[in-house]
Amino acid sequence: MPDKIPADSVGLVTPQTQHFDQPLNFVCGRTLDSYDIVYETYGTLNQSRTNAILICHALSGDHHAAGYHSIEDKKPGWWETCIGPGKPIDTNKFFIVSLNNLGGCKGSTGPVTNNPATNKPYGPDFPIITVRDWVNSQARLGDALGISQWAAVVGGSLGGMQALQWAIDYPERVRYCVAIAAAPKLSAQNIAFNEVARQAIMTDPEFFDGHYYERGVIPRQGLMLARMLGHITYLSDDSMRSKFGRELREGKLNFGFDVEFQVESYLRYQGRTFVDRFDANSYLLMTKALDYFDPASEYNNNLDTALAPAQANFLVVSFTSDWRFAPARSEEIVKALTHNRKNVTYVEVRSPDGHDAFLMPIPQYIGVFKGFMERIEI
Amino acid sequence: MPDKIPADSVGLVTPQTQHFDQPLNFVCGRTLDSYDIVYETYGTLNQSRTNAILICHALSGDHHAAGYHSIEDKKPGWWETCIGPGKPIDTNKFFIVSLNNLGGCKGSTGPVTNNPATNKPYGPDFPIITVRDWVNSQARLGDALGISQWAAVVGGSLGGMQALQWAIDYPERVRYCVAIAAAPKLSAQNIAFNEVARQAIMTDPEFFDGHYYERGVIPRQGLMLARMLGHITYLSDDSMRSKFGRELREGKLNFGFDVEFQVESYLRYQGRTFVDRFDANSYLLMTKALDYFDPASEYNNNLDTALAPAQANFLVVSFTSDWRFAPARSEEIVKALTHNRKNVTYVEVRSPDGHDAFLMPIPQYIGVFKGFMERIEI
Repeated sequence: MPDKIPADSVGLVTPQTQHFDQPLNFVCGRTLDSYDIVYETYGTLNQSRTNAILICHALSGDHHAAGYHSIEDKKPGWWETCIGPGKPIDTNKFFIVSLNNLGGCKGSTGPVTNNPATNKPYGPDFPIITVRDWVNSQARLGDALGISQWAAVVGGSLGGMQALQWAIDYPERVRYCVAIAAAPKLSAQNIAFNEVARQAIMTDPEFFDGHYYERGVIPRQGLMLARMLGHITYLSDDSMRSKFGRELREGKLNFGFDVEFQVESYLRYQGRTFVDRFDANSYLLMTKALDYFDPASEYNNNLDTALAPAQANFLVVSFTSDWRFAPARSEEIVKALTHNRKNVTYVEVRSPDGHDAFLMPIPQYIGVFKGFMERIEI
Repeated sequence: MPDKIPADSVGLVTPQTQHFDQPLNFVCGRTLDSYDIVYETYGTLNQSRTNAILICHALSGDHHAAGYHSIEDKKPGWWETCIGPGKPIDTNKFFIVSLNNLGGCKGSTGPVTNNPATNKPYGPDFPIITVRDWVNSQARLGDALGISQWAAVVGGSLGGMQALQWAIDYPERVRYCVAIAAAPKLSAQNIAFNEVARQAIMTDPEFFDGHYYERGVIPRQGLMLARMLGHITYLSDDSMRSKFGRELREGKLNFGFDVEFQVESYLRYQGRTFVDRFDANSYLLMTKALDYFDPASEYNNNLDTALAPAQANFLVVSFTSDWRFAPARSEEIVKALTHNRKNVTYVEVRSPDGHDAFLMPIPQYIGVFKGFMERIEI
């Protein structure tokens, strides 16, 4: 619990739920007849409705991007560094909408939700979802909130991919687009890591082909392994070295298979705590959405053509030590935007913190981000 | 099966077993009263016994480094590219000894071996082994074969670490030392990957705390995951891109969790086949030996001091795209050797093939390696 809520926080927030009865068609060919989207808002929508920002979350994120749900909360939302009064996404200026994506496990319709057709959780029968599907569902949410155009769509990692897809699919609805630590598509290595994570979950004997809810179990070990592996790719070799080095937890080698190095202890802790807050079927869906994202694939693998329809002004940010989505991947996006003579600001931020840097209060990053957001006319 | 055995192969080889009855004390404090070491030899020991080369294997390697066990073999030994007549480790000049390390699963005493004290496999009770222990056991093998000094000790990856430890612990017994794609110690990231692999194995419900032999099962899924993960770290992002890209196995997305991308198919195959040829307890031991290797730790983390006793001439080789043990890690070794005014040749080989490059016939690599080995006087 924070002693008191910091002055630069949005403070206490309450998630809201929007119900939709209009069927949503997915790229995979399936349809959801009705669904809920859970979201939070920060700041105030102006009368002309021109100051709305959409926040898109990353793989294990959710709608709770800023503030606290209760005074007892130990931690604020996941992007507290960037959302709040005086911060880059300034609640004194903007009205911010942050949602839990469909297929997630924090209240929006997903595998854990009861399927009205069967009166059991959707589980593995939830449609395979793509970034485009998310963007379509987010457009519906915008409609429901009376927001016909976003001042900006903003996201990091998988969230940045959603921001790009918005600029492509709804060019007239996005004035500014911020894609941080993203990539125009996953590399074979990225897919390979996702596949190991999926195999860890799916070969867990408690997975039961995704029907584990009915049995009152969860594929704990598999999800734990997936998260441990993910964590390695979020950090850099350097940041792990400076955080953990080869420090021994008990100061000496024990010649056994219990935790010996601090990094082992950290990873096991990350794995264990994740299992209590995330659903394995949702994790599988999120990794698939990552694998499938590839807007250029519809245009003969030409990213220039894919991005041609965009009308937004772009901010693209990468981090020097991010090896999951390295600066070279962001540069592919910047190059394609530049070929299209789009207005794009690009910055490669010096940071030892790997992919996770996008969540951190790095002065160069915050400065550029804030400067860009201040330029948005509302 | 090769149509016929190639002329530059050592041809058909037969493993041999050396039994030891003199107790071997391990760094962990435990002792093996008796043990076997399985090894192969290629070439002929000269009368003065000055032409012997010791090959040390990497994590999943074994004694079968070159040639064929039978005319039916589909593949030769794991280092066929570098061992044979006219190759860098030239069987026309050298007598080569290649062993399966203790703790392994290819015939040398290890977890699968019957423990005479219990009449059950050692399993998880096999002593935790370190690189130093291996080197001590290899010295005993040298004694048994009448080899008081190696013309060279040679290894890649974990094998390179053994070569370095030889040069430190038995300086008078190593004239040349070749450490390829090695590192002076693992980084936190390296340990982290090992830890995920270990957790995959140890949390497999068929692991039974390592006592799976008695139950007639193996921790198949865990070992498969460990191998899939290992494979990602052996390849580079670039080599995966050129091997697999984002190629779809069936040419289209299927929106399901079966294999879609070629890289998934490759990894699953690698995982599945590994399970049939490697023991999970051995895998755990090998990763621990990697984690523990850190010769500088005994000298206030001063690698210069650790390497000071060495008398060998060194060849150190790294590969540009190796991110498991990057060139910078080899340069730490070279720097420490140079500070000690040792005779050291260093080459950073241009290669897109990642860590696995050390097994490949890359002309620059083979050329430098061959040139170095030709300089060895016998």
